[in-house]
Amino acid sequence: MQATGLLSGQRHWVTNTANLAALIYTKLHSDKSTHPKGSHVNWVGFYFVDPSDSKKLILGPFQGKPACTEIRIGRGVCGKCFADRSTVLVPNVHEFEGHIACDAASKSELVIPLIHPDGRFLGVLDLDSTVHEGFNDIDTAALEYIVKILVDSCDF
Amino acid sequence: MQATGLLSGQRHWVTNTANLAALIYTKLHSDKSTHPKGSHVNWVGFYFVDPSDSKKLILGPFQGKPACTEIRIGRGVCGKCFADRSTVLVPNVHEFEGHIACDAASKSELVIPLIHPDGRFLGVLDLDSTVHEGFNDIDTAALEYIVKILVDSCDF
Repeated sequence: MQATGLLSGQRHWVTNTANLAALIYTKLHSDKSTHPKGSHVNWVGFYFVDPSDSKKLILGPFQGKPACTEIRIGRGVCGKCFADRSTVLVPNVHEFEGHIACDAASKSELVIPLIHPDGRFLGVLDLDSTVHEGFNDIDTAALEYIVKILVDSCDF
Repeated sequence: MQATGLLSGQRHWVTNTANLAALIYTKLHSDKSTHPKGSHVNWVGFYFVDPSDSKKLILGPFQGKPACTEIRIGRGVCGKCFADRSTVLVPNVHEFEGHIACDAASKSELVIPLIHPDGRFLGVLDLDSTVHEGFNDIDTAALEYIVKILVDSCDF
């Protein structure tokens, strides 16, 4: 599996999250065969718990347009994932109360928590799509699996 | 200036280098008016001195395809910038001895050092282009200026 190869040999969390965001983006953005709606993923990246404020996420490595630098716990889709410690799949962001619009092109969103085996909440993997219902349960399961490999491959 | 606005309010080096890579990439990759050869920049990102090995750079935030995770001092264009502590502009990477080919599409490269006011070498900003002579002295001066703003805007 490509993600496993990409994440072997180096345990720095910045290096591995930067390369994993690029791998996911390259696969989901460029490869039209992966989704009936074509090349629809416009942002893939990470937010991490701010080391100086445990109620806030700060922007980590990503692929896509420049993004919001800080997200408070409970705010928007990432903030909900942070508060609930569980995956949030939003088929239509305009129907999600409190959605933070970093890129007006985004129409659906998937946010997966990064949780250390010791229980610490580390951050989130965030994906935006330019179509409604851009992500389904199969995408969610695959990305949750990849996030587990990532957490095991880094020293956090 | 957009870079100054983007880098204000948050001092974490990961957040700021991730967003700055995206701003530079968005400008140089998408805006055909900025270069007579069109949309030619295929990789923009950072390598930082490995905290566990001061003779090695490790991959930081970037925009573009997945990349080499580690670069030894003196190896390739980034490694030369690391060894010499000065900007390296390579009009044709295939004429540069020891060039590391992360993406076969890359034909020219510009690498700018990140040096802390206290003298510490922090890492490099690396840009790849799909055309020969993709970067000139004006690009170099502008990006060296942006790198100074970046270093002043982060806690390293």
